[in-house]
Amino acid sequence: MKTYKIGVIKGDGIGPEIVDEAIKVLDAVSVAQGFNLKYDEMLLGGSAIDETGVPLPEETIQGVKKCDAVLFGAIGGPKWDNLERHLRPETGLLGLRKEMGTFANLRPAMVYDELVNASSLKPAVIQGVDIMVVRELTGGIYFGQPRELHEDEAFNTMIYTKEEVRRIAVVAFDIAMKRDKRICSVDKANVLEVSQFWREIVEEVAKDYPEVELSHMYVDNAAMQLIRDPKQFDVILTGNIFGDILSDAASMLSGSIGLLPSASTGKGVGLFEPIHGSAPDIAGQGIANPLATISSASMMLRYALNETVAADRIDEAIRKALAEGYRTGDIGDYDAKEICTCTEMGDIIADYA
Amino acid sequence: MKTYKIGVIKGDGIGPEIVDEAIKVLDAVSVAQGFNLKYDEMLLGGSAIDETGVPLPEETIQGVKKCDAVLFGAIGGPKWDNLERHLRPETGLLGLRKEMGTFANLRPAMVYDELVNASSLKPAVIQGVDIMVVRELTGGIYFGQPRELHEDEAFNTMIYTKEEVRRIAVVAFDIAMKRDKRICSVDKANVLEVSQFWREIVEEVAKDYPEVELSHMYVDNAAMQLIRDPKQFDVILTGNIFGDILSDAASMLSGSIGLLPSASTGKGVGLFEPIHGSAPDIAGQGIANPLATISSASMMLRYALNETVAADRIDEAIRKALAEGYRTGDIGDYDAKEICTCTEMGDIIADYA
Ligand SMILES: CC(C)[C@H](C(=O)O)[C@@H](O)C(=O)O
Ligand SMILES: CC(C)[C@H](C(=O)O)[C@@H](O)C(=O)O
Repeated sequence: MKTYKIGVIKGDGIGPEIVDEAIKVLDAVSVAQGFNLKYDEMLLGGSAIDETGVPLPEETIQGVKKCDAVLFGAIGGPKWDNLERHLRPETGLLGLRKEMGTFANLRPAMVYDELVNASSLKPAVIQGVDIMVVRELTGGIYFGQPRELHEDEAFNTMIYTKEEVRRIAVVAFDIAMKRDKRICSVDKANVLEVSQFWREIVEEVAKDYPEVELSHMYVDNAAMQLIRDPKQFDVILTGNIFGDILSDAASMLSGSIGLLPSASTGKGVGLFEPIHGSAPDIAGQGIANPLATISSASMMLRYALNETVAADRIDEAIRKALAEGYRTGDIGDYDAKEICTCTEMGDIIADYA
Repeated sequence: MKTYKIGVIKGDGIGPEIVDEAIKVLDAVSVAQGFNLKYDEMLLGGSAIDETGVPLPEETIQGVKKCDAVLFGAIGGPKWDNLERHLRPETGLLGLRKEMGTFANLRPAMVYDELVNASSLKPAVIQGVDIMVVRELTGGIYFGQPRELHEDEAFNTMIYTKEEVRRIAVVAFDIAMKRDKRICSVDKANVLEVSQFWREIVEEVAKDYPEVELSHMYVDNAAMQLIRDPKQFDVILTGNIFGDILSDAASMLSGSIGLLPSASTGKGVGLFEPIHGSAPDIAGQGIANPLATISSASMMLRYALNETVAADRIDEAIRKALAEGYRTGDIGDYDAKEICTCTEMGDIIADYA
């Protein structure tokens, strides 16, 4: 039987609860589809700090390289907020992304018909929204040098090289070819040199994709258009920090940040994680929404392992559960038949998948 | 009779149309309230490039210094988009802000009850929203050095000095004291040194305002919360580029970017402008919404000239016109009795003011 090795990073806060449910679902579909998943647990973030003193242990760096894909929950929490920067949970995550070379962060923002009332936006504005945010993940101001904190001033550097922009643009154009063939590249080229550069390289890459329609939008306008008329977008291509902001904004179209998955791919092993954080305030209460993580597991099957049927089974199971009115608390106000705990929702999806 | 000298920069695109209507309204209230306004027209942006070769002529720099306040429309357009950076309209505007020392950009995002259906967000989510975004305007990555564009890479620098953060924080706290006494400072302190610095200085300033409740939020989360539950915010304090993005997002709560004014103040003369751009696509058609500019004129009366009653008259006139169903095209779908041209809307407000 085909066996895949999956790195599992549960992380902090609600991380362990939601990852456990995703594994439950993965086990169900792998049995049904006749392949095998071997899990290898690794530490990252706060729990890594507690156990090893650093947020990204060397063992994790080496470990992920031996996997076919990595499933990740979430990290961080108030307990570790006041550590020095190099010891913080987030620094571990950024380091892991960099080590794994996962420069392309794919963040779908889609609206489940079943939850069209769950958003703060009007149903007519969001029904049918299907956006793919392609965010550059290992460059830009997140990693730019120099970066310094002094008594009287502090600064960071937003920098992009030609190769960094080119390769993320290629990812976006390849994805656009499989979708509606429209890319909106988001920058602030009217003010920033780094954005002007970004725009030029994207234009260059576009020449290899004559079928794809490319447009450009300033980031302030994009934040506005995502709220005004999100259906205008197919693929949004943008840099690290703009992508961070815009993908979180876009997540609100779906009604809850607890629903949306992400895939980070690049040179080698891919990293699959919900776009939400570790929600320390509700950790351990069993009320977290595991659907974003289960959805991330589906993206892992589809993009990293090429187990398309298994991925489809999960996506279908999620839709079915939502259509039947199963809801976790975060989406509990909308056409709910039954409010589920985290575990109950995992059970239902595993059952339907 | 008291006489104020008002610098007038009409700018490009719809700029001239909307500024003309604001002047019409200013004239009406100044007569009614017994003061005199003397207008001094100056060039900026594309029209300045066309007439003088540069986007910010020396005459304008000198001119604004002699005014009591400056009313500004909008600049930019495709005609000037491919000029070198130092010759672009936007560079002129950034230069003017810097020359005038207007480091504090106040961007109210409020929802007119009369237009509660005009937003893409549900009425229940936005009714009663009243946010003041305090954006730092003359620092950060917009002005940071070094900034370079090379063949193979490009970069900008996001930098803040202690004094820059301190003075904008003081503005925000002073404003909060006159409002609901709550400030949410927005940064990305989990990743950026410059944000960590920002947070520390804001905390320091907060000590002088024990009555004000200060919270911090990451910019990605803030973009999300503005859509999820905007009523949680009173004053939002943030840096230049985050403020650019968030204030545009916040403008969507009101239903149209054509409604919202802004005031830029600082060391000397203040600059008052709508938050929207020059909308070259609809320029000259007479369909632009002048309300944001008229509202900016009201902010000018209130904050720069201390003519509070005149400002109140304008704000009341806008509400009355909206309540009676007068709408420009951008808000024409919502409870409209009559769709007005730009000039007609100006006439109505001038009449009611
Ligand atoms: C936790 C943080 C460093 C991270 C980021 O900003 O990349 C998160 O917001 C995300 O978007 O995955
Ligand atoms: C035109 C542009 C330079 C400007 C900015 O980004 O500051 C505009 O978007 C604004 O917000 O006033």
